[in-house]
Amino acid sequence: MKPAAADVEVRRWTSGRWSESPDQVVMEEPLQLSLNGEELSVVMRTPGNDVELALGLFYGEGIIKTANEVAQVRISAEATEEERALQVDASIVDSNSIDVRLRGEPHRRPARSMLASSACGVCGAVMIEDLKRGLSPLPSGPHLDGPVLTQLVERMRQGQGVFESTGGLHAAGLFTARGELVSAREDVGRHNAVDKVVGRALLDGRLPLDGSILVVSGRAGYEIVQKSITAGIPVLAAVGAPSSLAVALAREFGQTLVGFLRGERFNVYSGSERIR
Amino acid sequence: MKPAAADVEVRRWTSGRWSESPDQVVMEEPLQLSLNGEELSVVMRTPGNDVELALGLFYGEGIIKTANEVAQVRISAEATEEERALQVDASIVDSNSIDVRLRGEPHRRPARSMLASSACGVCGAVMIEDLKRGLSPLPSGPHLDGPVLTQLVERMRQGQGVFESTGGLHAAGLFTARGELVSAREDVGRHNAVDKVVGRALLDGRLPLDGSILVVSGRAGYEIVQKSITAGIPVLAAVGAPSSLAVALAREFGQTLVGFLRGERFNVYSGSERIR
Repeated sequence: MKPAAADVEVRRWTSGRWSESPDQVVMEEPLQLSLNGEELSVVMRTPGNDVELALGLFYGEGIIKTANEVAQVRISAEATEEERALQVDASIVDSNSIDVRLRGEPHRRPARSMLASSACGVCGAVMIEDLKRGLSPLPSGPHLDGPVLTQLVERMRQGQGVFESTGGLHAAGLFTARGELVSAREDVGRHNAVDKVVGRALLDGRLPLDGSILVVSGRAGYEIVQKSITAGIPVLAAVGAPSSLAVALAREFGQTLVGFLRGERFNVYSGSERIR
Repeated sequence: MKPAAADVEVRRWTSGRWSESPDQVVMEEPLQLSLNGEELSVVMRTPGNDVELALGLFYGEGIIKTANEVAQVRISAEATEEERALQVDASIVDSNSIDVRLRGEPHRRPARSMLASSACGVCGAVMIEDLKRGLSPLPSGPHLDGPVLTQLVERMRQGQGVFESTGGLHAAGLFTARGELVSAREDVGRHNAVDKVVGRALLDGRLPLDGSILVVSGRAGYEIVQKSITAGIPVLAAVGAPSSLAVALAREFGQTLVGFLRGERFNVYSGSERIR
């Protein structure tokens, strides 16, 4: 497996004085994603958990719904033993590429770009209407205690070894409603960290993720909310700010959206009835 | 013009107590991008400066090289008067869409996805080799004083009105080597903020941006470094961490890459000879 951080020489400037020392930066490498042998796109990511990333991304795009639909994953030699063990029939191919082969037809054809607009143009309301055709509102539970939420960022950080050394990684952590950590993933891209967590749950047969909380280290934009609702996650909590479209989407689907989760404080933008 | 922030009702939790108050969140809306009437992709962005965003993005992708190549920009009615005045021949079309029509052929066909891999797979080294075919190393200047760098984030923030109210915007600021602000743009997407700054420079006929400094509020990943080198920017400074590929790319093209620009400190990962 490739390391998640790389050593570099750095010159440090502190109030007019220079010093030199080794430092670590987060690894960023492209990953070529293919479906049934056809190249789809290249994702910039931190190497590691590439199977989770690919499957979580394809799940979020509506291409697959269960791990059973995957006949074979062809991954690169950098994959961990654990990842290779997940596969039905793995082949070792070139580095930085992954090919997911399905048993049957995909549920949805991969989009050429993010989405093809309707003739009337595209806006947030139209995107939400589109999602409503494929997704249902989230169930009303779980209920959780406010103090549970305020502990989750620290718990996620404790497992975030590479962030500590590089400051350059985003994290996503999945928790139970009582605040127990289920899985945490790091990546140079914050969408990737969420895809990896969802891909892990897909491989474990735990989707949809009723009754769970997803914590993300950065901001909550449209895509993070869309991915988490697609995975059935009823509570999304972000260290950073939400966007207008994230709030609108969470309200439409009944997701609890928490922002600015810092210390003993947080803001609730949607679904505060889940928090006691 | 659409506002860059939206009002929302928020429930605040502070050490076990709830309070309610209005708050502002950053606007996020999709923008449908078309080239010569053909729909290319949808970008999530903060409304405003959409012409700059589209032209900066197309410049970064190598599709256009000067503003003269643009015959017409069809933009939505939300565009500002200033933006409409920039156009050779503007039409008012549907909201959240922009269509750039060229006089001649594009310099490069827009990619179906980020890039098509070669048969040997794709890796950071291959991506850098690809870029070397189209880009030259940056010239050796300018030289700048360390203390100039430490003032730039504060100068950029002073013009960042929406960040103050929402905490949800990324910023990019273009400065001269003496630290004078040339332009600053905000966006929910950090790549978009850079595209808007580059698009502004394209419209003003100031590309390539020899002798200038680009400051970004977030991290420096591959794409930010690639976009800034393409625009000829010799010094890139980020408030956050750089990635491995960002460092490799900056070193290859002779760009000065500064990270963790905070207070009286910064780290230099490449090209420290430009800093006195």
